[in-house]
Amino acid sequence: MELYNRQQIQDVVTLDRAALEAVEAGFRALGEGNVVQPPILSMAIEESNGEVDVKTAHIKGNSRFAIKVSPGFFDNPKLGLPSLNGLMIVFSARTGLVEAVLFDEGYLTDIRTALAGAIAAKHLSRADSRRVAVIGAGLQAELQVAALKLVRDIDTLDVWARDVDKARAYAMRMHQTYGLETIVHETVADACREADIIVTTTASRQPLLSGEHLPDGVHVTAMGSDSPEKRELDTSVMERADHFVADTRPQSENNGELKAYAGHQPPFEVLELGQVVASGKSPRTTDAEITVCDLTGTGVQDTAIAGFALGRLAS
Amino acid sequence: MELYNRQQIQDVVTLDRAALEAVEAGFRALGEGNVVQPPILSMAIEESNGEVDVKTAHIKGNSRFAIKVSPGFFDNPKLGLPSLNGLMIVFSARTGLVEAVLFDEGYLTDIRTALAGAIAAKHLSRADSRRVAVIGAGLQAELQVAALKLVRDIDTLDVWARDVDKARAYAMRMHQTYGLETIVHETVADACREADIIVTTTASRQPLLSGEHLPDGVHVTAMGSDSPEKRELDTSVMERADHFVADTRPQSENNGELKAYAGHQPPFEVLELGQVVASGKSPRTTDAEITVCDLTGTGVQDTAIAGFALGRLAS
Repeated sequence: MELYNRQQIQDVVTLDRAALEAVEAGFRALGEGNVVQPPILSMAIEESNGEVDVKTAHIKGNSRFAIKVSPGFFDNPKLGLPSLNGLMIVFSARTGLVEAVLFDEGYLTDIRTALAGAIAAKHLSRADSRRVAVIGAGLQAELQVAALKLVRDIDTLDVWARDVDKARAYAMRMHQTYGLETIVHETVADACREADIIVTTTASRQPLLSGEHLPDGVHVTAMGSDSPEKRELDTSVMERADHFVADTRPQSENNGELKAYAGHQPPFEVLELGQVVASGKSPRTTDAEITVCDLTGTGVQDTAIAGFALGRLAS
Repeated sequence: MELYNRQQIQDVVTLDRAALEAVEAGFRALGEGNVVQPPILSMAIEESNGEVDVKTAHIKGNSRFAIKVSPGFFDNPKLGLPSLNGLMIVFSARTGLVEAVLFDEGYLTDIRTALAGAIAAKHLSRADSRRVAVIGAGLQAELQVAALKLVRDIDTLDVWARDVDKARAYAMRMHQTYGLETIVHETVADACREADIIVTTTASRQPLLSGEHLPDGVHVTAMGSDSPEKRELDTSVMERADHFVADTRPQSENNGELKAYAGHQPPFEVLELGQVVASGKSPRTTDAEITVCDLTGTGVQDTAIAGFALGRLAS
């Protein structure tokens, strides 16, 4: 059994095409019905404003699977500690023996979450997409764009965030690091007006994006909502979309944007990202159609990225 | 963060009164409504005849909680490997940071399972219980009796197991190790005839124990069934009992003996072990009453034993 720390993992796993293909293969297997993926185990530690989630999945036939434990303790910043944390345990799928523990402190979650955004854009956005609007200015605001660059020739970044100073700092960083033309906007509407792709990356509990903000032909990835309290999209976004895709429908209903339709059928078809990847063709049929993808984070992404990481670490 | 292996853990955690009190405190907190205990996460790895379970619980106000991952791969013995395995991860309940990983390979599960049997007997069996009938001859057949000796003056052991050679070897071991008078029987009925306490410890998928096997005043602990396929008690056992207790009712319905009543109300009251412990008094009111306790294994036991183990390891 091997133990690896965050630095060792960061040294070998980055946002590259091979990592993207590994996570994409996980979604493909999910769409083909070749994945066992139980519901998320979730526990609140109310007195510390904390929660812990456990996610797992097994891709049938794979020699390994991973279990990820993600604590989120939201008063940690007051103590000078990060809110998010965690580790992944990699097991042999033949014997159940532990092959490795990846003490990645949430790093692999950041990576596989960004890659899922890129996978969504690869299969749903217009191939000529160049201009991205990002709502939010946190870590995923950066990683989502970095991952998008693997699949689309992004050159322009429009930014809106609640905290304008953070929005400016983020835009500056994205300009310096990735050479993007960046514009900070005062409203969500302004940020989205020219977008080919919109990515919402916030922990908002109220919808930030409305259907009226969407230009024709845009693709929207909403990756912020991952719990029963959070929500980024007004129902008008989904109802305006020509194609709505969830990473997994039950999770979107519990933790994602479909919770807006709690208890009743949404007035549109719900596709799953794995099905789209497995089908090999985009549901988009014209450049004017609007696509929306809701990402809540799935166990198969964790199993895929952990197996990928261990492959690189152990070689 | 500290890592501990099985040997280190075995050196400090054994079946003693302090460990019993730690697990009993967990059940008490559960009964008092001071525990968050989400449903078990369970995933099958069919191609390897394997499964993995994740259990957790948080005792409100405790400084730590544990998450246990238990793989069971039932073809492992063909490979010369144990079927059961696993580890526990201990987290700070203040920050969610990992405090320790206990690579106990299932040892602490064995211990906390045996202690739950002793806790059930302490609160449900007659105080003058001396004679125990054990159904099965595996590891828990031994540990359950060793744990019972912490709470009752056991002197005689009646044994029945499907494999008579294993039954004889087990009886010999229990005589030599614990100085018990031991008798191997040819039928379950014979083994139970004089019992003060009956413990079923098998992986049976059909009921082994019937109501007609129960002498007046007996206490039964059924600890074998812990999955949807397994079952040790005929419904006549529960229906003959004056008091039926589950470690937790939902788990007994899914994985334990209450699954015999799937979809309808059982024709008897269902108590929970935590409630019994918290109440401080046994539901038993006479020496002739029959009590039955179904143990499926709960996350609070894991959190309790992991915290106890880490307390000893770190001191």
